[in-house]
Amino acid sequence: MSINSFGHLFRVTTWGESHGPALGATVDGCPPGVEIDESMIQHWLDRRRPGQNRYTTQRREADQVRILSGVFEGHTTGTPVQLMIENTDQRSKDYGDIKDKFRPGHADITYWQKYGIRDYRGGGRSSARETASRVAAGGLAREAIRALAPDVQITGYMVQMGAQAIDRTRFDWAQIEANPFWAPDAEAARTWADYLDDLRKSGNSVGAIIEVVARGVPAGLGAPVYGKLDTDLAAAMMSINAVKGVEIGEGMSAAMLTGEANADEIFMGQGGPRYSSNHAGGILGGISTGQDIVVRFAVKPTSSILTTRKTITRTGEETEIVTRGRHDPCVGIRAVPVGEAMMACVILDHMLLHRGQVGENRGKIG
Amino acid sequence: MSINSFGHLFRVTTWGESHGPALGATVDGCPPGVEIDESMIQHWLDRRRPGQNRYTTQRREADQVRILSGVFEGHTTGTPVQLMIENTDQRSKDYGDIKDKFRPGHADITYWQKYGIRDYRGGGRSSARETASRVAAGGLAREAIRALAPDVQITGYMVQMGAQAIDRTRFDWAQIEANPFWAPDAEAARTWADYLDDLRKSGNSVGAIIEVVARGVPAGLGAPVYGKLDTDLAAAMMSINAVKGVEIGEGMSAAMLTGEANADEIFMGQGGPRYSSNHAGGILGGISTGQDIVVRFAVKPTSSILTTRKTITRTGEETEIVTRGRHDPCVGIRAVPVGEAMMACVILDHMLLHRGQVGENRGKIG
Amino acid sequence: MSINSFGHLFRVTTWGESHGPALGATVDGCPPGVEIDESMIQHWLDRRRPGQNRYTTQRREADQVRILSGVFEGHTTGTPVQLMIENTDQRSKDYGDIKDKFRPGHADITYWQKYGIRDYRGGGRSSARETASRVAAGGLAREAIRALAPDVQITGYMVQMGAQAIDRTRFDWAQIEANPFWAPDAEAARTWADYLDDLRKSGNSVGAIIEVVARGVPAGLGAPVYGKLDTDLAAAMMSINAVKGVEIGEGMSAAMLTGEANADEIFMGQGGPRYSSNHAGGILGGISTGQDIVVRFAVKPTSSILTTRKTITRTGEETEIVTRGRHDPCVGIRAVPVGEAMMACVILDHMLLHRGQVGENRGKIG
Amino acid sequence: MSINSFGHLFRVTTWGESHGPALGATVDGCPPGVEIDESMIQHWLDRRRPGQNRYTTQRREADQVRILSGVFEGHTTGTPVQLMIENTDQRSKDYGDIKDKFRPGHADITYWQKYGIRDYRGGGRSSARETASRVAAGGLAREAIRALAPDVQITGYMVQMGAQAIDRTRFDWAQIEANPFWAPDAEAARTWADYLDDLRKSGNSVGAIIEVVARGVPAGLGAPVYGKLDTDLAAAMMSINAVKGVEIGEGMSAAMLTGEANADEIFMGQGGPRYSSNHAGGILGGISTGQDIVVRFAVKPTSSILTTRKTITRTGEETEIVTRGRHDPCVGIRAVPVGEAMMACVILDHMLLHRGQVGENRGKIG
Repeated sequence: MSINSFGHLFRVTTWGESHGPALGATVDGCPPGVEIDESMIQHWLDRRRPGQNRYTTQRREADQVRILSGVFEGHTTGTPVQLMIENTDQRSKDYGDIKDKFRPGHADITYWQKYGIRDYRGGGRSSARETASRVAAGGLAREAIRALAPDVQITGYMVQMGAQAIDRTRFDWAQIEANPFWAPDAEAARTWADYLDDLRKSGNSVGAIIEVVARGVPAGLGAPVYGKLDTDLAAAMMSINAVKGVEIGEGMSAAMLTGEANADEIFMGQGGPRYSSNHAGGILGGISTGQDIVVRFAVKPTSSILTTRKTITRTGEETEIVTRGRHDPCVGIRAVPVGEAMMACVILDHMLLHRGQVGENRGKIG
Repeated sequence: MSINSFGHLFRVTTWGESHGPALGATVDGCPPGVEIDESMIQHWLDRRRPGQNRYTTQRREADQVRILSGVFEGHTTGTPVQLMIENTDQRSKDYGDIKDKFRPGHADITYWQKYGIRDYRGGGRSSARETASRVAAGGLAREAIRALAPDVQITGYMVQMGAQAIDRTRFDWAQIEANPFWAPDAEAARTWADYLDDLRKSGNSVGAIIEVVARGVPAGLGAPVYGKLDTDLAAAMMSINAVKGVEIGEGMSAAMLTGEANADEIFMGQGGPRYSSNHAGGILGGISTGQDIVVRFAVKPTSSILTTRKTITRTGEETEIVTRGRHDPCVGIRAVPVGEAMMACVILDHMLLHRGQVGENRGKIG
Repeated sequence: MSINSFGHLFRVTTWGESHGPALGATVDGCPPGVEIDESMIQHWLDRRRPGQNRYTTQRREADQVRILSGVFEGHTTGTPVQLMIENTDQRSKDYGDIKDKFRPGHADITYWQKYGIRDYRGGGRSSARETASRVAAGGLAREAIRALAPDVQITGYMVQMGAQAIDRTRFDWAQIEANPFWAPDAEAARTWADYLDDLRKSGNSVGAIIEVVARGVPAGLGAPVYGKLDTDLAAAMMSINAVKGVEIGEGMSAAMLTGEANADEIFMGQGGPRYSSNHAGGILGGISTGQDIVVRFAVKPTSSILTTRKTITRTGEETEIVTRGRHDPCVGIRAVPVGEAMMACVILDHMLLHRGQVGENRGKIG
Repeated sequence: MSINSFGHLFRVTTWGESHGPALGATVDGCPPGVEIDESMIQHWLDRRRPGQNRYTTQRREADQVRILSGVFEGHTTGTPVQLMIENTDQRSKDYGDIKDKFRPGHADITYWQKYGIRDYRGGGRSSARETASRVAAGGLAREAIRALAPDVQITGYMVQMGAQAIDRTRFDWAQIEANPFWAPDAEAARTWADYLDDLRKSGNSVGAIIEVVARGVPAGLGAPVYGKLDTDLAAAMMSINAVKGVEIGEGMSAAMLTGEANADEIFMGQGGPRYSSNHAGGILGGISTGQDIVVRFAVKPTSSILTTRKTITRTGEETEIVTRGRHDPCVGIRAVPVGEAMMACVILDHMLLHRGQVGENRGKIG
């Protein structure tokens, strides 16, 4: 991992700013022969696209992806795939006010402190718009995974908004696509809708927790000590804008368990080990067990809000700021497809890494 | 980051198994001219060393570090520093029982599934013993930081054991070194002592939450988009054995805040910005603000316990296992110096990375 | 270095095929605040551009570069710079014949053997057209170097075409820009012109040797053992299409010298060491001495020639091939700006790397 | 590649100085299940070991390798393999004279200029002694290659000493092990012996050219654009101490060929393509063809000679130097096993990289 690149063998470098001519992902190391076209990637971008309902920013971006390289006659060639998305609805004038002021809770001030120059238009490089590039790369990763391990299924959903968590006893995979919050709990979705309507009207915002599950991942992916599957997942999720925490399996609650309670007991199932539980979130010692990989991450509330906050200017004067623009009352909603994309990139990367070092999975049980 | 290496410019590769002849860290990219000798590194190793009180494993390891390269006349030369620790108290016979059985919740099964071969003695490469190498590398990182930014202070402590958290109103830096749990709350330390005594007698174990704070870190460290300071910290902490969750600032609780509550308002202080609060944990947009860097991570309970658990053998037969050996009832205790070491490595790495790309910090305020 | 990326901190990833919609370079890690616009990069691209005289391919490409990211108000921001060049004159029909046959001496066969899929149009990814991306990245590197070390001057020129080398006693820097071969020897340029006219008419091609010199490079750049300045230069030059050999200073002829003859004796000059000679090519132990950095590389003749050669088809039948298309009789000519670009990228990268690890140059003499 | 590390997946980091307690190689990413023990690595170290005949330095080093990690019951486990060699015959007193003077043609001056500190004992990190670590890593790489592709054979030999090249019509593989110069031409070996005896007596030294051939390498190894097989070989060989030039196939002479002469025509042989010649040195477009991989490199003469040379001191005074110590009159001799080791590391690395990205070789011909 290096500044703007991510991954060991399936290596994604994103580039571009919120209000520049375009942004995109340079994807190196994709296996050759993967069937892909722009519509297959567009499918995933459309899920992240803003302006689809009243709960996300009203910026209207087509988010139309173009494949500029690495694909020939509908298949990857093994050379870098350049995925470009042109910016069409920049409306830079909205952002004049933040040119010289720093929004509290936003990267405005740190970009300035680090670089001494800052593309303030729409947050520049620090805009959540960057995540469109990740979703595009993730779309390609999904197709490559499909070719290698067709049983893998990656699904993200929201499990908490503000203080309100889903009720796991009502968990229903089918609900996820049926509401604007990717909630697996229809009742929670209804509660969140009301809550968010109020919040949006008051110009405020709120955080959320997203869970991403990868089912059907073979055992043996990951590597000691710093190339652990959970290490790379933690990095992947924490690198998403506004994320402040990452959990695998039990996550922070693992602190509360005893060793007796935490042990996922092992039995023999058909074709391999079977576990009594999945506190581990599908990863032991940084290597996948074959159980579901379960990752959660918390997204903080957008700092661009209508409430007046105290801040300073670039020249050091104390002042106040209100961010008008077009923002997401709960940016966590659009983080769901982003989390899925990062999961896909990490899983594919580790499939290639495992195949590179070890070849065919070697340790048989039974 | 790559399998057993960590860091961009200050690059640490750890090697070695629990019961092999030795383990250590190969540290590449250390600045030249840093004053260092073995005793300065030993100081930090001694804090992590097992067998110091009844709350940690009774394995007796001197954990004596030797500097084999990269240091000349008491200063680093800029070439790789090899830090080696010989294993002296292996007692392999203790581990005969786990040769063919997999401990639930342990990497035994995944190492086997991945590699088809496994050094089962004491957990081999997956043993927490590997973290001694990290502490040694962290000791070197601390001295390099001291030379570059003498104000930086890195301190770890335990904030929760099992269900019992510290009371932040009793937080006292001076307490941290005064009890065996690195607890900043003397009362919590007493409660934990009783709790852990009972747990140890029953052969059980428990998880914990560790917090590591870096004070005095200059603004501007970190980089978009995958080289974010919090991304690298998340990876660093998640790579530690038994860690299941990582948080920056508010962490998972950020989900519960509104944008209004979450905004750390900015004022002008002496010599730079001053903030009303630190929900961000000292990092915005992946770049340090100059506030305290605050990281927390959860350590799951050791899976090596005296309670009988169901498991399978390598040949796929269902059986039971009890792990006798010498283990930590709360491995989180010894994770404190490890977390500090990882923080030191990440901070130093980003100091060098920033200096490399940007040079002198350029964006002045006021 | 990794597949399609090059550099440690100033990291260039090139992408794109000869006949795809576009190609370019994703440049990560550029220092912020570097003054740059498209015309400053275009300047260097125009030197490499085909069709400028009768000695290079008649393909007409505008090679117009667009900066898509990382630059704001005429300065780099420290975020990735995307440099895109659209392909405009593909004429794919020219290449129909090579769809199923492999050109001897060309990457046609190995791309097929490796990937099982091949963009045969114009050589796809293996086309020398890829080097336009490098020249663009090199143009940016030059401006960054100018900001850091204004005295550095990087100049490439041709020193041999076929069997005919320049006469070093006639070496004249001013001649380099005055003839189509970048020859520092006017008489050699005239001889080459006649020779190449004949060769071009017969549909044949020929190899060449290019020398690239960097003057004014500070002492201390480079690093042991694999990050040596000469190691990275060797990799950089060898990675250019058709290059088969790389030399530093005396190069292969160093084999013929005795230790006595090879030693560049050292004296004190104004402001630092002065050397009696430069057999070392400005690099000792992988680190720059402050003398001129001197690199040479040999470019083999284009394999796309009008002469009939024996080959096989994809289905394994023996056949013959003649490559009509539009090709360079001496591709070495256009390799001159490419070699300069690679030198610029390597020098800048090592400036940043040195600044990162060591900071201010520390070892003073005298 | 990064400072002291080399390789993408099979990643070697060497460490240690000439006169420190030990040196070695940390090898990460080795496939699991490779049969290995210390004697198998010692075999290759013994070939490089000094003091074996009167043509190499009389320093007496046992060069005894110890495997400290990553191997269990005679097989690699997939975790890092630490290979350590203790220094036993340092005799530091020999080097007192070079403490404050810089040997012309040696890294003394550049290490000082870069780092401001220098382990002057025996050249410290810049000593050719470092190459023992490479030979050890190469020994492991050979065994891993044997497990993956038993037909691969890697052989190095000297083809030129000073101005005297071998006669290729007398080339005899059997001769290589039969003389102290690894010469495939018995007559050349005799001439060199006389020549070197004279040179050694006069305290002078001389350069050499080494050729390393890898036979039986499968087609398809390598990758565009910077991960080319020849790019990595050029870097690998140029990173060896004292190397000033690297050639693949025709090398620098490729400049003299026409396209007609240079084309290796292709025919169908048994089981695959067959070529009329091998000007390409087994690599086209950076990817192996299945022909012999042929690399040559030039080693400059040792700068540690008995002849008095002009130099300066650290404080900038002009003076003279004579290097007494124990040195190699032709350090190229001992570079033969080093070149073989680097070839083995590169080939294995690209086998793993290819397997990772592409899996089974996919492009069939015929």
